[in-house]
Amino acid sequence: MAARIAPLSGFPEWLPGQRIVEQHVLDTLREVFELHGFASIETRSVEPLEQMLRKGEIDKEVYVLRRLQAGDEAEVERARQLGLHFDLTVPLARYVLENAGHLDFPFRRYQIQKAWRGERPQEGRFREFTQADIDVIGRDTLPFHHEVEVARVMAEALTRLPLPPVRMQVNSRKLIEGYYRGVGVETDEAVAGVMRVVDKLDKVDRATVLGMLADEVGLSAQQAEACVALTAISTSAADLTAAVKGLGVSHPLLDEGLDELLRVLEGTASLQSDRLQVVADLSVARGLDYYTGTVYETRMVGFEHLGSICSGGRYDALATDGRTTYPGVGISFGVTRTLAPLLSRGLVAGSRSTPTCVLVALPSEDDRSGAGEIAASLRGRGVPVEVSPTAQKYGKQIRYAERRGIPYVWFPQDDGSHQVRDIRTGEQVDADPSAWVPPAEDLRPTVTGTVKELR
Amino acid sequence: MAARIAPLSGFPEWLPGQRIVEQHVLDTLREVFELHGFASIETRSVEPLEQMLRKGEIDKEVYVLRRLQAGDEAEVERARQLGLHFDLTVPLARYVLENAGHLDFPFRRYQIQKAWRGERPQEGRFREFTQADIDVIGRDTLPFHHEVEVARVMAEALTRLPLPPVRMQVNSRKLIEGYYRGVGVETDEAVAGVMRVVDKLDKVDRATVLGMLADEVGLSAQQAEACVALTAISTSAADLTAAVKGLGVSHPLLDEGLDELLRVLEGTASLQSDRLQVVADLSVARGLDYYTGTVYETRMVGFEHLGSICSGGRYDALATDGRTTYPGVGISFGVTRTLAPLLSRGLVAGSRSTPTCVLVALPSEDDRSGAGEIAASLRGRGVPVEVSPTAQKYGKQIRYAERRGIPYVWFPQDDGSHQVRDIRTGEQVDADPSAWVPPAEDLRPTVTGTVKELR
Repeated sequence: MAARIAPLSGFPEWLPGQRIVEQHVLDTLREVFELHGFASIETRSVEPLEQMLRKGEIDKEVYVLRRLQAGDEAEVERARQLGLHFDLTVPLARYVLENAGHLDFPFRRYQIQKAWRGERPQEGRFREFTQADIDVIGRDTLPFHHEVEVARVMAEALTRLPLPPVRMQVNSRKLIEGYYRGVGVETDEAVAGVMRVVDKLDKVDRATVLGMLADEVGLSAQQAEACVALTAISTSAADLTAAVKGLGVSHPLLDEGLDELLRVLEGTASLQSDRLQVVADLSVARGLDYYTGTVYETRMVGFEHLGSICSGGRYDALATDGRTTYPGVGISFGVTRTLAPLLSRGLVAGSRSTPTCVLVALPSEDDRSGAGEIAASLRGRGVPVEVSPTAQKYGKQIRYAERRGIPYVWFPQDDGSHQVRDIRTGEQVDADPSAWVPPAEDLRPTVTGTVKELR
Repeated sequence: MAARIAPLSGFPEWLPGQRIVEQHVLDTLREVFELHGFASIETRSVEPLEQMLRKGEIDKEVYVLRRLQAGDEAEVERARQLGLHFDLTVPLARYVLENAGHLDFPFRRYQIQKAWRGERPQEGRFREFTQADIDVIGRDTLPFHHEVEVARVMAEALTRLPLPPVRMQVNSRKLIEGYYRGVGVETDEAVAGVMRVVDKLDKVDRATVLGMLADEVGLSAQQAEACVALTAISTSAADLTAAVKGLGVSHPLLDEGLDELLRVLEGTASLQSDRLQVVADLSVARGLDYYTGTVYETRMVGFEHLGSICSGGRYDALATDGRTTYPGVGISFGVTRTLAPLLSRGLVAGSRSTPTCVLVALPSEDDRSGAGEIAASLRGRGVPVEVSPTAQKYGKQIRYAERRGIPYVWFPQDDGSHQVRDIRTGEQVDADPSAWVPPAEDLRPTVTGTVKELR
């Protein structure tokens, strides 16, 4: 197959040593999620288009499928109605409705899968990317404490990953709405309008936002100033109540939201460290309409230009079949968004490019069968082993190991004994194939790099 | 989100308990592949269409992507050139060419990913499915012993999976070609023609095949009979040479292929058991033109109608950039094809529907924080734990665990001590949250079912 070969922009791929970092990250996420009793599911990669477009703002970015040589126009039309999912939340909602009779609620699931968006690629934005989501879905009701729980679980996972320090920013939709109502914003429509305009503060300047609040939502200058003032609060639990109360607004829903936000901060306090901060940030609103309680975003220190690497929130009605409503809360970690800049800058790397820990050297090609028995014996104790692909001079066989970062080369001796050499130090010792094991830190490839040293 | 919800034919999805079986299978495959020094890679899900269509017979089945609202016709045309990959071999060839300067050869990689084909769904044929491939790719040359190795590695993996007994059928393209040449089939074109026609023997009857060999390839009746006779040989190593020689045909390439086939059978002899047979089956040719040496297919006993669940072979030129050629050998295991009928018939199942091993019961909602500390202590020793979502009566909390198959419920006592109950037996004992661990077989969900009992 000869061809013009070039990477496709927005579709990242990793070399084997980089993939080892990604595997480590995925394994760690799975480990933490399962320790907390989240069950794995995978959903199909496609959803009916009409299903996906309910989240209207995203429709331009969907990849639609058609069969290359669909037989007739009707078939083309049917096939056109399938699109690749652009997140893991819409498929979850559909999966819950489809399988509600077979699931136990609250349903705790994690899902680590690829998603696709046809948008213009740039750092932090890909056309194909891996997400890792946790959600807790209730039937009809879902207690608030799960809003604390998912933040705790994701914070624990983030802390165990080889990342720069991260800052989780939490807010409450109830707090914001209660505050707006306290300021005198009366209708649901106006409240939603204020959220939508204020959410633009990271893109347009303060004066423009104030103008839009007056012109588009009909607020007085004083109301507009008050709404914008709330977004300036970014603080730890200790100062939050004073900062909010200092704005002089009161409303029962504001108090409820403030209380909930404090409970999230207090519930995650024991996880905070120099690697992970959790703060109240009252500018965080999340664009999507369906959030109704706690909302989460996360920034990575030094990589703030990526935007949020880990986001989510509480939704009172993600899915409903008319009779039953399924409220939930979830957080989604952007695996590709987070790792791509670290991998492409070499800030994290695998300690070797292969799982192999030991290369069994071959005195001659006739020894391949015996070498295979040595390898099988070592593998029986969980040691990844290869037999040398050729019986070249030992120097060449050692270089084969060196190029891949394989730490040990095993030498069968003429007298039937064995020696194993750590090729990093050159130390070579007698070894018994039925008993030898490497030091635990050499058994599997590990993650190295400057980011790791931050830990 | 209210909607008409229905499964999509050909896009299988699993419930959490079924997904546990799939995860077990994927974990086992990864474990075996890594023990043998195969490195993981993932390739992007899309390839340029022109790249995929080099394997001509498959073009009708590709899913093509377009952006839902692509801006102009030129963009539509560009986007149309991307299709979802239909296997993991074409992407591997492209990946090797694209990254040759960064890879070490022979390059040993495994790849576990989804693939898509727009064909009509039926049992064993899906539109979205997971494949698990191993390949060894050389630069310019690749020693024969890797053709033995990949069969050994995949046989070892298959033996460790919760499947009915499997039968791996091996053949050699060299043996077939040498035999045809010995019969007097002279040109490369005629040899390929015979292979193509003889490969139809599982679909059309013997007389029709004999007629096609005469009419389409121009063989004499005697030559056609001889070519068909070869396909009847299906035997173990002990009888293979006699069976082939008994046909009275000789050619140097036939001898070379026979010798290689015997080496594959001998190399896998130690892996054979009542769960796995490896036999020479001279009817196996594999449709694809690019195979040049050993070819592999695998049937699952009782599920022969699925076709081959695990197939591959040696190819001398999977990829070339004009200067360098990359020969390889690989086998691809159809994870979805194999598991779907076992899961949907309930022949295999997860022992529970969640990773959770222990549910910490809540005396009252005020005890949630303390229960969280007990849970964290257990998790610190690798035990998956949930805290009860509500402080209902203990009977209800126990039923929460029962419904999910969670084996243990933890009860904090009024006096500060603790008890843990195995809810399967009702046995309840004192326990220390800083020391207690469950029996190893309860720590994680396992795979159960009649298929498992065959092992």
